[in-house]
Amino acid sequence: MNLKPIQLFDTESSTFTYILATQAGGEAVLIDPVDEHWERDLEHLRRLDLKLAYVLETHAHADHVTSAGKLRELTGAKAAVPSGCGIPPADVQLNDGDVIRFGGEEILVLHTPGHTAGSMSYVWRNNVFTGDTLLINACGRTDFQSGSADALFDSVTKKLFSLPDDMLMWPGHDYKGQVVSTIGWEKQHNARLATRSREEFVQLMAELDLPKPKRIDVAVPANQNLGLPHSV
Amino acid sequence: MNLKPIQLFDTESSTFTYILATQAGGEAVLIDPVDEHWERDLEHLRRLDLKLAYVLETHAHADHVTSAGKLRELTGAKAAVPSGCGIPPADVQLNDGDVIRFGGEEILVLHTPGHTAGSMSYVWRNNVFTGDTLLINACGRTDFQSGSADALFDSVTKKLFSLPDDMLMWPGHDYKGQVVSTIGWEKQHNARLATRSREEFVQLMAELDLPKPKRIDVAVPANQNLGLPHSV
Repeated sequence: MNLKPIQLFDTESSTFTYILATQAGGEAVLIDPVDEHWERDLEHLRRLDLKLAYVLETHAHADHVTSAGKLRELTGAKAAVPSGCGIPPADVQLNDGDVIRFGGEEILVLHTPGHTAGSMSYVWRNNVFTGDTLLINACGRTDFQSGSADALFDSVTKKLFSLPDDMLMWPGHDYKGQVVSTIGWEKQHNARLATRSREEFVQLMAELDLPKPKRIDVAVPANQNLGLPHSV
Repeated sequence: MNLKPIQLFDTESSTFTYILATQAGGEAVLIDPVDEHWERDLEHLRRLDLKLAYVLETHAHADHVTSAGKLRELTGAKAAVPSGCGIPPADVQLNDGDVIRFGGEEILVLHTPGHTAGSMSYVWRNNVFTGDTLLINACGRTDFQSGSADALFDSVTKKLFSLPDDMLMWPGHDYKGQVVSTIGWEKQHNARLATRSREEFVQLMAELDLPKPKRIDVAVPANQNLGLPHSV
């Protein structure tokens, strides 16, 4: 677990943003930056003397707005997004198996649908960034925005749980102060997915009866435009 | 900047706790754990299959209570503390230049007085954990608990600023959502210490006129007992 990301947090939406980098003066990648924190994120890049190569989105978020478009304008970084998320202004539309290269490093793109149909996870060295597909001892909801409990079950049990047991798992959110897990622990203990059959999991997710996310009607269209104002 | 710590946060006191580890199944060190989060911290150790070797304190905190004593009881880890902080129940009393060894790794102990007379910073690979001596674009207060602006000026400008410019600087607190800096950036830009003379810095610190920390009368004696209840 040698190479870890820098992890930042938005207390409003409990969203994690990640900075991937290996050396001061080198290139960096940001995953899931939050609109309100674009200055904080740029300050980190400046302090660590990092050149932003890519901004990655794991999906089109329903609970916060991305700063990907703004950061692209300010830094010249490329915005790379899942091809199935309807984000046409991005520079790169990512598909399963694609590799993103920055500063001698490689990030593998894994299509992990379920929270949304387009959701991606990103593997960098011994770390996987699972967005809202797999959370620590939990998983993302599957009841809106092209979500599918069936698809999420496959994404987690077939794709993510096939990664090495000691791989660090960095989620898109946490609501209990936890910050990191491992694939091995989630495979054995995840409260929703470790021991349930597909049918039991689909039934559980159908019965959650969660409220509609407060910001979804604003956030999703905004995120499909990289967080930039829509031209009139 | 390859080897980074895992960084945890206490929203109540804005305190950072750090987990240092290199591989699942190996040994780990915790720096400045917070009483209320001992279960969260143990959950991280369990999920990453880490054996806690040491709990380190940077100083006897005035704003929160440590869980060092509790974690020692529950895990068998040793509590290692600055020798000048009046924490007699600790297993190891640390002095400047000492080296702490865990899982093939080394942590160098640097005495950096100023926030308190005993305050230590810890250097692990390309990371330094500065406690409340040096904060991101700021520094700890020096007006109580054996603090000294004079001593802090020396600790930062002579000791911490002598570390490599690209060394990551992980503070004991942040109040603005920042999480990490570098020695080089702080040396050039730190709002309190980058450009001031000793006299200007001492005067600035004397004029801050900060309120007394709410929990100091409870927290300091508790921390001098590793956060354990005092025997009657």
